[in-house]
Amino acid sequence: MKFKILTIFPDMFAPLKQSVIGRAQICGAIEIDIVDIRSYSKCKHRKVDDEPYGGGAGMVMTCQPIFDAIQAVDPYHEYLRVYLSPKGEVLKHSLSKDLSKNHDKILLLCGHYEGVDQRIIDLMIDKEISIGDFVLTGGELAAMVFVDAVSRHIGGVLGNEESSQDESFSSNLLEYPQYTRPFEFMGQKVPEILLGGHHANIEKWRNEQSKITTKEKRPDLLGD
Amino acid sequence: MKFKILTIFPDMFAPLKQSVIGRAQICGAIEIDIVDIRSYSKCKHRKVDDEPYGGGAGMVMTCQPIFDAIQAVDPYHEYLRVYLSPKGEVLKHSLSKDLSKNHDKILLLCGHYEGVDQRIIDLMIDKEISIGDFVLTGGELAAMVFVDAVSRHIGGVLGNEESSQDESFSSNLLEYPQYTRPFEFMGQKVPEILLGGHHANIEKWRNEQSKITTKEKRPDLLGD
Repeated sequence: MKFKILTIFPDMFAPLKQSVIGRAQICGAIEIDIVDIRSYSKCKHRKVDDEPYGGGAGMVMTCQPIFDAIQAVDPYHEYLRVYLSPKGEVLKHSLSKDLSKNHDKILLLCGHYEGVDQRIIDLMIDKEISIGDFVLTGGELAAMVFVDAVSRHIGGVLGNEESSQDESFSSNLLEYPQYTRPFEFMGQKVPEILLGGHHANIEKWRNEQSKITTKEKRPDLLGD
Repeated sequence: MKFKILTIFPDMFAPLKQSVIGRAQICGAIEIDIVDIRSYSKCKHRKVDDEPYGGGAGMVMTCQPIFDAIQAVDPYHEYLRVYLSPKGEVLKHSLSKDLSKNHDKILLLCGHYEGVDQRIIDLMIDKEISIGDFVLTGGELAAMVFVDAVSRHIGGVLGNEESSQDESFSSNLLEYPQYTRPFEFMGQKVPEILLGGHHANIEKWRNEQSKITTKEKRPDLLGD
């Protein structure tokens, strides 16, 4: 999977060099290209924003630098062009899985300030995606969350020691509680069932715990 | 507002030094302290994880390093202790606002691998929060999203040029489309209404556009 991320804050993407996503790039399972929108600005001082028509607080990112950046890095529109925005379809486990299956090239546009000029969305963007019903100071964190959530479904990204099969949302259930050594910590013991080595019973208990947790914390997931 | 973030990947937090959140720390509106859990590990090799009781893929973060780290940085439990987890209450605009109003000290625990030992949650955590119904390779991006979404509501974080009043979700509506110069771009013109300088009409148009956009893209928000 190839990602191109268009941003005015290229230095923000350090987290993608770490941990699972960092390793996935080294082994070639994913490629991430960070594109600095500012370097495409034709304005003096590399300006990338201007005041909104009609007034109001904040600045709006102008068309020209973004348009030229997208044309330069994806001239044949091979990439699914995504704008991270509170107005987009909300990212869910199922959407992240579908995107990882149906696309091998995704371009992510990160907005800032009051967002981008609507004409860029109308002319250049295939899909708006939101990571949740809250507002962020920019699209960069949302883009990283997107890359992380989508990449986990790609073969070679998670090592043998990790798993995307048996985790929260994989069957509309939250994950069961996990325990590791020591057996007793601050007077709290690990549930006996996990110690017996009876795999069928352990699986049954974990499944019950998943259902109990989901019913208690997120009954809406069960209704889906 | 003071944040303490407990993590085994302290280098991931570079994005918080940039842009709005970076400036907010410089001007003193918020304070962010990154705590390396690994430095509290009593194991040789600073190990922080172990195999899950009952078997299964992945590793579980052990109790001791996290327990000792929390005890060291928040000995009197002055902080609201939050664990970022898919099992938590889902972060929304309203929750981010409530947290910013009701707390001035928040500790965030970032899990990794298959999560943390359940006993740490039972013994030490006040609240589990999820940023959405998808799985991430770790809690670090979720913690940064949390800090960003919550901090925006704190006085002094957003400059005069920004605004948290008139944005998506502030009244259960998505934001209206924004335009800036030039008036015409690739044959696409700015809506005439925004040019007239008639503020009441502009406000009316924007409000209508917000409602149209919300009805089309997120009718669920209107039903709240």
